[in-house]
Amino acid sequence: MTTSTTPRERLLEAAGELFYRDGMGVGVDALCKAAGVSKKSMYQLFRSKDEVIAESLAGLGPAYQAALLPDTDADLSPRERILTVFERQDRLTAEGSLLGCPFVSAAVELKDPDHPGSVVARRFKQHLTDFFQTQLMAAEADDPETLAVQLTIVFDGTSARAVVRAQALAGIGPVTASALLDAAGVK
Amino acid sequence: MTTSTTPRERLLEAAGELFYRDGMGVGVDALCKAAGVSKKSMYQLFRSKDEVIAESLAGLGPAYQAALLPDTDADLSPRERILTVFERQDRLTAEGSLLGCPFVSAAVELKDPDHPGSVVARRFKQHLTDFFQTQLMAAEADDPETLAVQLTIVFDGTSARAVVRAQALAGIGPVTASALLDAAGVK
Repeated sequence: MTTSTTPRERLLEAAGELFYRDGMGVGVDALCKAAGVSKKSMYQLFRSKDEVIAESLAGLGPAYQAALLPDTDADLSPRERILTVFERQDRLTAEGSLLGCPFVSAAVELKDPDHPGSVVARRFKQHLTDFFQTQLMAAEADDPETLAVQLTIVFDGTSARAVVRAQALAGIGPVTASALLDAAGVK
Repeated sequence: MTTSTTPRERLLEAAGELFYRDGMGVGVDALCKAAGVSKKSMYQLFRSKDEVIAESLAGLGPAYQAALLPDTDADLSPRERILTVFERQDRLTAEGSLLGCPFVSAAVELKDPDHPGSVVARRFKQHLTDFFQTQLMAAEADDPETLAVQLTIVFDGTSARAVVRAQALAGIGPVTASALLDAAGVK
């Protein structure tokens, strides 16, 4: 399943896949087996399963962002940059390579906002809101802070819909984000 | 913890509370202990833990809907009836009596759209969308079906925000729902 070389990398990669696919309840035994690493080695590398959860979530972050966010040098308006996120969410969900936001899922499953995994989840959700806000400021929107939060809400609600219905989203994310951008006069 | 009388009622009530608070990973032993029911009795009443999950979720439904939806005889416009849902979500979250939608959380945790609990979750989310659609039809909105889905997305995204940030929502749900209703000309 992996081309990573060190036990640490293999553990984090397996954890990222297994926790997202099967939930945070995946046990240390199954995790170590999937990674091809002994439990003893795991506990030499990480203090606890909670630390593996947090680090594997943090490890998912860059690829998740790269999959959703437009290239920084893409020739797009701020509005188009924002809508790219929703179009990609729609496409990745239809392709079956995204089923819900891994950070929201982690926070929902961990239940504890102080869990190190929940802290990582909060940080990455804030990255998305910050991205929207930066674009909205560039577009000179009236209240970029509030609208950035609203767009994050649309993103996460659309993710929830994908999970609950287990169907393609059929463009509802871009349509809803566009409605909010239109309402705010972001052209 | 309960004034219910039959073992079945006690099990479903304990399951509704424990699965929502601690997640679907709560074991049968902990569940039976909380309900004051033996495991043997549980398995005489339910075929499996999955069945307990599904029935306890279904049991949460009416109280959840009563907490969020306006009274049928309340003197409110369709728009006000829709916004009531978001205002109550905001207030219940601030009070600490709601942390995320239990149906979305269940679907996120169960991972399997064919799990009987996921089926119940989908049904109750559809109830909310149907409620919005009925109000939008009464308000003669242009595309009640799409707008009802968009409002459900705002509801679920706002729930996700409550879980991820573990903070009061400060009115973002009603503001976002209002923006979509305004954009659609629903007065």
